[in-house]
Amino acid sequence: MPIIEIHLMTGRTVEQKRDVAGAMALAVQQSLGVKLESIRILITEHGAEEFSVAGVTAGERNEQAAQDAARKG
Amino acid sequence: MPIIEIHLMTGRTVEQKRDVAGAMALAVQQSLGVKLESIRILITEHGAEEFSVAGVTAGERNEQAAQDAARKG
Amino acid sequence: MPIIEIHLMTGRTVEQKRDVAGAMALAVQQSLGVKLESIRILITEHGAEEFSVAGVTAGERNEQAAQDAARKG
Amino acid sequence: MPIIEIHLMTGRTVEQKRDVAGAMALAVQQSLGVKLESIRILITEHGAEEFSVAGVTAGERNEQAAQDAARKG
Amino acid sequence: MPIIEIHLMTGRTVEQKRDVAGAMALAVQQSLGVKLESIRILITEHGAEEFSVAGVTAGERNEQAAQDAARKG
Amino acid sequence: MPIIEIHLMTGRTVEQKRDVAGAMALAVQQSLGVKLESIRILITEHGAEEFSVAGVTAGERNEQAAQDAARKG
Repeated sequence: MPIIEIHLMTGRTVEQKRDVAGAMALAVQQSLGVKLESIRILITEHGAEEFSVAGVTAGERNEQAAQDAARKG
Repeated sequence: MPIIEIHLMTGRTVEQKRDVAGAMALAVQQSLGVKLESIRILITEHGAEEFSVAGVTAGERNEQAAQDAARKG
Repeated sequence: MPIIEIHLMTGRTVEQKRDVAGAMALAVQQSLGVKLESIRILITEHGAEEFSVAGVTAGERNEQAAQDAARKG
Repeated sequence: MPIIEIHLMTGRTVEQKRDVAGAMALAVQQSLGVKLESIRILITEHGAEEFSVAGVTAGERNEQAAQDAARKG
Repeated sequence: MPIIEIHLMTGRTVEQKRDVAGAMALAVQQSLGVKLESIRILITEHGAEEFSVAGVTAGERNEQAAQDAARKG
Repeated sequence: MPIIEIHLMTGRTVEQKRDVAGAMALAVQQSLGVKLESIRILITEHGAEEFSVAGVTAGERNEQAAQDAARKG
């Protein structure tokens, strides 16, 4: 049955989404020996304020990096 | 507590979303004997490039079908 | 594609799981007009310490209820 | 590893998202004693027709409340 | 960030789980061009009564197949 | 509605689970201004072979660390 959910930052191209879907399905088929037809993959995209590491969103991190760069610049 | 997540292709109408939420809640209430008020349902929609079967996204599949139809036409 | 995840407290019987899977699939098929074969349902069970409302786990709530009952009894 | 998914109604500000990410990460770090850097949080937003309690979507509930208010008004 | 959840039927060996984790991470790294270290994968296993297609759990399906085989046998 | 899923490695005590549920609910209530009663949290635990970073499961990583330690010892 493999059912897979992959969470990504927004901004991937159609080509990248097709590539990752194809590559993951193949990886699962070969490593688990399941039928390719039984594999379903759901992609969910998250904006820069919808993903955080260590309590800091990607948006906040980008903002801080830009400020640091401006200060040094 | 039943908490339910349902993943759908984008494009359902408001009416369909209300219908499916109502029908699913009723189905869960009757089969499990839980209080209707305890049932929460989350709908997540996925675009044609965000869902794949057998490593091929719905978008790619649609595109191939259109090309096949054009070739035969 | 409907892919559904339902979170339940542990302790349902095999019969209940089959009932809820059948009832939910039918509800989704009828309200969205999708093919029954396209519907996949995943059940995930959670123990009494793995589910909380208002920051209090079901296990803690049960414990408090038992203590209250003992005190009154 | 704590990986956390939080489902919210749409409409939170950037500030609120940063606040909730920071506050949750701190809460998890302190209660479980894990490294802050190991905590990842995904926010998923749901529109008013994508969330329901007791089989009634938030959108439908709002609509009914507005009609009730108009009738009384 | 890629965060991936893969739902499998119970019964995979340790070797298979390590294989699928390695193969999926590689597939995602190569198709999206992300750092291998940024990829996290969660496996969730479901028993035969916790997964259904078309409203029929895998357990029920196996049972019916066994009965059919016995009848023919 | 905040509905939260938190994925943890297996092995937390009952006390830790109650603590993290309480702390997260408080964090969400205060940062988003929602009612405490509206917050639901689901904990899902994953064994050492059910979680991987960079394609290497926690179990494999632990095994390698033990072998490295033995070699140096």
